[in-house]
Amino acid sequence: MTASHKVALFPGSLRRHGMTRRLGRILAELAPPTLAIETVEIGGLPLYDADLEAAAPSAWLDLRRQLQGADAVLFVTPEHNRSIPAALKNAIDVGSRPYGENSWAGKPGAIVSFSTGAMGGFGVNHHLRQCLVFVDVPTMQQPEVYLGNADAVIDERGRMVSESAEDFLRQFMTAFADWISLTRR
Amino acid sequence: MTASHKVALFPGSLRRHGMTRRLGRILAELAPPTLAIETVEIGGLPLYDADLEAAAPSAWLDLRRQLQGADAVLFVTPEHNRSIPAALKNAIDVGSRPYGENSWAGKPGAIVSFSTGAMGGFGVNHHLRQCLVFVDVPTMQQPEVYLGNADAVIDERGRMVSESAEDFLRQFMTAFADWISLTRR
Amino acid sequence: MTASHKVALFPGSLRRHGMTRRLGRILAELAPPTLAIETVEIGGLPLYDADLEAAAPSAWLDLRRQLQGADAVLFVTPEHNRSIPAALKNAIDVGSRPYGENSWAGKPGAIVSFSTGAMGGFGVNHHLRQCLVFVDVPTMQQPEVYLGNADAVIDERGRMVSESAEDFLRQFMTAFADWISLTRR
Amino acid sequence: MTASHKVALFPGSLRRHGMTRRLGRILAELAPPTLAIETVEIGGLPLYDADLEAAAPSAWLDLRRQLQGADAVLFVTPEHNRSIPAALKNAIDVGSRPYGENSWAGKPGAIVSFSTGAMGGFGVNHHLRQCLVFVDVPTMQQPEVYLGNADAVIDERGRMVSESAEDFLRQFMTAFADWISLTRR
Repeated sequence: MTASHKVALFPGSLRRHGMTRRLGRILAELAPPTLAIETVEIGGLPLYDADLEAAAPSAWLDLRRQLQGADAVLFVTPEHNRSIPAALKNAIDVGSRPYGENSWAGKPGAIVSFSTGAMGGFGVNHHLRQCLVFVDVPTMQQPEVYLGNADAVIDERGRMVSESAEDFLRQFMTAFADWISLTRR
Repeated sequence: MTASHKVALFPGSLRRHGMTRRLGRILAELAPPTLAIETVEIGGLPLYDADLEAAAPSAWLDLRRQLQGADAVLFVTPEHNRSIPAALKNAIDVGSRPYGENSWAGKPGAIVSFSTGAMGGFGVNHHLRQCLVFVDVPTMQQPEVYLGNADAVIDERGRMVSESAEDFLRQFMTAFADWISLTRR
Repeated sequence: MTASHKVALFPGSLRRHGMTRRLGRILAELAPPTLAIETVEIGGLPLYDADLEAAAPSAWLDLRRQLQGADAVLFVTPEHNRSIPAALKNAIDVGSRPYGENSWAGKPGAIVSFSTGAMGGFGVNHHLRQCLVFVDVPTMQQPEVYLGNADAVIDERGRMVSESAEDFLRQFMTAFADWISLTRR
Repeated sequence: MTASHKVALFPGSLRRHGMTRRLGRILAELAPPTLAIETVEIGGLPLYDADLEAAAPSAWLDLRRQLQGADAVLFVTPEHNRSIPAALKNAIDVGSRPYGENSWAGKPGAIVSFSTGAMGGFGVNHHLRQCLVFVDVPTMQQPEVYLGNADAVIDERGRMVSESAEDFLRQFMTAFADWISLTRR
């Protein structure tokens, strides 16, 4: 019997019915049964401001607790202006603070970036990776996922319409489960 | 007589009395008289969410108007987790939208990154540059500013205590004025 | 009558009959008549080694002279391992030295990255841009070119088989000519 | 008794008596006894050119064999033009090919970047990390090393003159040994 791991899924978009949500659900379904995936709601976090730490907003404290309770982290995100969407960057900043209390530290991570255009969010994928070095999230290298033309792969009702893309994402989630088992301390 | 240019200064930190504010004031003082520098307040912008565009928050509309009224943009920013602070990324995202109405387009820009440590915010500096390609801000290449050990250069009351750093920042602002004159369309 | 500008084209691949060469020729043909485009041969440059500067290889000196004689620079490149191909990085390093004699300084630049896959060389495009900040090449922001699926757009004999791609590259070259006129000092 | 690991050290500079060599020797001395560190000579590798694969240069084949025989890889490198020195990028490209035979795959890695200035090679450090995603080198996140002012820390004869820097580098090498044990497949 293998161990079970709790995975906190961080969405890169706040849209309620957008591609990020649909893709997140698909990834949760395709994951091996050893992974329990729970989406973190990041839209209610006040913008990070160190001046507020003295009386930290409760939404910040909730995020930090949720992160501390997770075994691993998964990012599912579009690209905004060739980089990380502000709401997702805010979650990263909030989780990394206050100084000396980084809640991300040591949790294995993986990234799924996507776009409706062809490029699949290369910019956000690697900007995220640069942040994850600093907050000490050992991040899976391969397989990389840059899911381009997402509209052609996932329909309006959130169903995969490409078998090869589905297979690839299933392999990705299996590799992630292996990566967690390998690097979780 | 030379033309006068309005420069919108975007701070990378929301702290009210932090280094970002002090450095912003110093840069405004050191700028040639042809530049009128005004700081944009970005702390009150709701997190970017495309679902809200149908009835866009007034703070978003204000930011877009302010940006449209500027001739150029200047970023003064610390680094958060090796990248752009969330509040600043949020301002970039808000200003670039709604789709097809990018308020940044064509405005010359420059970046001053800083840190209290030695490295001067290299990560935020270049992540910002990647965004500025997409939103079409022609960004000054040289001189680069990575102001390290900012605490040793600017004191608690916001005065420069290093003459060489002051000279360098004055040259930077002069070069920026030239860059604006060269590239402003 | 407009001024004529000499553009040094730096290829990112050493292959003699590869896509880089074909794409380079197409760009030269699509360019406005005010641009005279000449490809720089970078395959014969010894690897950069500061120990050799005391008696610099003649191929290095030739590259530097050729660069100094150009008004602008154009990069046409595939991606190798998510970054700049070694041969092209070598040309950048050779051209930037010896210390204090950077032959790139002030020459306007533009980048065309491509791939046979979908992503169009995003990684090389932006790594190049980071280098170009340092060597002081004011680089055109828009339009960006990430030419994906290049094999479907350009055939074996080097002809464009997509009219829309051809139009886009023609617009790109026209925008580059404008950028050179704007920023050439 | 712990397992012993062979670590291939890739230098970022070809200078025979430069800081890269001195720092490489220091890191080898500070490493735990379980690591056997051997420097790879990369100066004699012809520039990567896919046209040559049909009759690959013997220096390429040697590099690939050496890499295949290693358990892990360590990069010790200055920054050239805000990115990876050409000679080191060439070694990465040569080792990743021919297509389908990536000799880097799965070998744990770590990066030590340095500079004589203050910034410690942030640019090369993270550009390297982007390449290492693609070639599938699981790279240690923390501690990061950006060794600034290297001349003040290591003297002409290659001795550490800062005890705190020496302690830090020793901890880094110990963490790297742990990372190899954790992730080596």
